[in-house]
Amino acid sequence: MLRRTPAVLDALLRDLPAGWVAAHEGGETWSPYDVIGHLIHGEQTDWLPRARIILDHGEQRAFDKFDRFAQFAASEGRTLPTLLDEFAARRQESLRGLASLGLTEADLERRGRHPELGVVTLRQLLSTWVAHDLDHIVQIARVLARQYSDEVGPWRAYLRVISGAQG
Amino acid sequence: MLRRTPAVLDALLRDLPAGWVAAHEGGETWSPYDVIGHLIHGEQTDWLPRARIILDHGEQRAFDKFDRFAQFAASEGRTLPTLLDEFAARRQESLRGLASLGLTEADLERRGRHPELGVVTLRQLLSTWVAHDLDHIVQIARVLARQYSDEVGPWRAYLRVISGAQG
Repeated sequence: MLRRTPAVLDALLRDLPAGWVAAHEGGETWSPYDVIGHLIHGEQTDWLPRARIILDHGEQRAFDKFDRFAQFAASEGRTLPTLLDEFAARRQESLRGLASLGLTEADLERRGRHPELGVVTLRQLLSTWVAHDLDHIVQIARVLARQYSDEVGPWRAYLRVISGAQG
Repeated sequence: MLRRTPAVLDALLRDLPAGWVAAHEGGETWSPYDVIGHLIHGEQTDWLPRARIILDHGEQRAFDKFDRFAQFAASEGRTLPTLLDEFAARRQESLRGLASLGLTEADLERRGRHPELGVVTLRQLLSTWVAHDLDHIVQIARVLARQYSDEVGPWRAYLRVISGAQG
């Protein structure tokens, strides 16, 4: 699943007109552009670095806090295709790094310490990496769909992504 | 956007293990496999056929009702890769058909009649086609993510796709 995300985002976003790339859901919500920057920052500082902290230090050393706003400075002036390329390259690098750890079933039960959530296992960290990717795919598709909230007219009632209905 | 959807779904789903492809959210909810069948049925009976009804008959003839459950019989015994291939081919065909209509701005304001929603415009139909694709991308990514609802442990609180928080 982790290998798939760059291709999914590429198919969804590359060369999309600028209005779609910068679209958001109002207020401080993120655009597809913001999300790609966030995913890059995750590859740099979150997933594999935290896995290494668990393996090297266990619960003794809490993870560094993750900066949810780092992408606003890091992405400045860059184009979306450049960010998509960087995400794909960093993800590939992360997966190589992950494979090189040669994790065993027992390793997956090793414990680390999240600065807010407390004790977590390596298995939970890796599962969260996957679910986090999917969460942001959901977010990007939702942000894009909601740009058509008015354009769809009465069909709004049938489109859960626009009406906000769950399920 | 309509051209992108087959590639997005292919990147997300092709050759995924069977457990993921058949995963759903409980009860009568749909799996990724069910959704692809539904999208194929839409290409056959919903979007372009309805556009043609608007152009040929205006409000005089209501659209045929869409069968939301057609895919359960139509997909039976077929593999996901076959369905993905068929969806990609039918979508390409639909887009060729759409281009061949040579729609003008004025055409987009032409009106038709939905059997439940009443009067709708061609512009609303085409906008809904796009938003409907994105709605189902959201759904598939959400269904996949929720398979890890327990595996993510305490991170559950941060993952909106699992916790069900909006925004």
